[in-house]
Amino acid sequence: MSVWALPGMPEVRPGDDLAVLIREAVAADGYPLVDGDILVVTSKIVSKAEGRVVRADDREAAITAETVRIVATRERAGGGITRIVQNRLGIVGAAAGVDASNTAEGTVLLLPLDPDASARTLAAELRRDAKVGVIVSDTLGRPWRDGQTDVAIGAAGVRVFDELHGEVDSAGRPLIVTRPCVADELAAAGDLVKGKLSGCPVAIVRGMGRLVGPLDLPGAATIVRAPEKDMFRLGADEAHRAGYDEGFAAGRAAARGEDRR
Amino acid sequence: MSVWALPGMPEVRPGDDLAVLIREAVAADGYPLVDGDILVVTSKIVSKAEGRVVRADDREAAITAETVRIVATRERAGGGITRIVQNRLGIVGAAAGVDASNTAEGTVLLLPLDPDASARTLAAELRRDAKVGVIVSDTLGRPWRDGQTDVAIGAAGVRVFDELHGEVDSAGRPLIVTRPCVADELAAAGDLVKGKLSGCPVAIVRGMGRLVGPLDLPGAATIVRAPEKDMFRLGADEAHRAGYDEGFAAGRAAARGEDRR
Repeated sequence: MSVWALPGMPEVRPGDDLAVLIREAVAADGYPLVDGDILVVTSKIVSKAEGRVVRADDREAAITAETVRIVATRERAGGGITRIVQNRLGIVGAAAGVDASNTAEGTVLLLPLDPDASARTLAAELRRDAKVGVIVSDTLGRPWRDGQTDVAIGAAGVRVFDELHGEVDSAGRPLIVTRPCVADELAAAGDLVKGKLSGCPVAIVRGMGRLVGPLDLPGAATIVRAPEKDMFRLGADEAHRAGYDEGFAAGRAAARGEDRR
Repeated sequence: MSVWALPGMPEVRPGDDLAVLIREAVAADGYPLVDGDILVVTSKIVSKAEGRVVRADDREAAITAETVRIVATRERAGGGITRIVQNRLGIVGAAAGVDASNTAEGTVLLLPLDPDASARTLAAELRRDAKVGVIVSDTLGRPWRDGQTDVAIGAAGVRVFDELHGEVDSAGRPLIVTRPCVADELAAAGDLVKGKLSGCPVAIVRGMGRLVGPLDLPGAATIVRAPEKDMFRLGADEAHRAGYDEGFAAGRAAARGEDRR
């Protein structure tokens, strides 16, 4: 597997055609796309091309508008509040993906409306040159482990899971629980070469053609676990508080009931 | 960045010297290690070399012994109970890393006692050939997203975080919150080429030499977030239940107090 950052991508502006910009950068770089290549595209440039910019004085309002459900909140050491929320894409993360870095002064950027659709449009266009897959990536923190990794929030023409169901290990036992999220791993590999500061928002992954398939493969939306299936659908403090309130009411009612007997 | 699975690794047995086995496989493959290479080594072969095998009829006991703290439990659809626990390494995951796949019949494998130390020993030995870094990887599920990705549970001679503190984005604003966990991203990249079934437990990453440094760089233990700093230190159901019990007692006491007035 080879992974490199595509050099020469210009600053992306609302209305830009990403396929054209990528195709021009690839041509200038001199390494044509080949069948089986996977492009990892930072969601930020997808958002910019799609004009998902709002004024920065609306940042908190923008976060609220993108939020479907508050998962956890905590006061930051330096002031302000960290809001871990589920956004309208189902993705759980800080600030609903509302991004204030590398944007024009006084503006923030929202996530693409439908990153799987964005990936599909881009992949369809680039498939005029070669049968490529497209991942739209974003940077997310995670519970239990410090720091962030890049994950897939959009995907087209590439398998998001390496399905090992029904396969067996080398001792012949079924590998029932292993379902590697290769889309997230591809996004992570892309981040290693793109970096956050280099101004290279596109990585090209070559050598993983076994994961590339039809454009209508399930997208990254299928990675999102439904809250009712999630053991961590709510922050520990938030769940504790909700339980306490319920318990308090029940305890008071129980005491009254006992006293009446 | 190039990433490939090292072919020709034999089945690892207790007492084997991993550095010798890797060096022999590299020599047979014909691509010598060079300065800046990073080896991503599946924890399973580290455990095997270190003899971390216990009898399978002790599996539940082994999980309990490796568990420091139960984070969440849930009944599985197919029967049995999924236990998400923090193990003695601080890592939160299912079954405390106790592994029953690809092990000899009737046995399970525990995680290495100290994966950072294992990585350091291996890197020190391999540095006789070239200045390499070593990541010890394991496969973990995660909240909110289906499937698993490989992460770093041990590291030596390689930076685990790409520290962007104090750096600025292209508009000159400080990148205060971005701290990519490159060790986890390297483990993910390695998993893409190793696969779970191919019998290739070692991946070599070339081209990320900027992350390689002294052997005494902080290890993967520093990735683990302390529970008291973690908004998801306890499952939602578990936290709710604890809150309910506290609330119930408080509600009952409050009712009694009010009635006495």
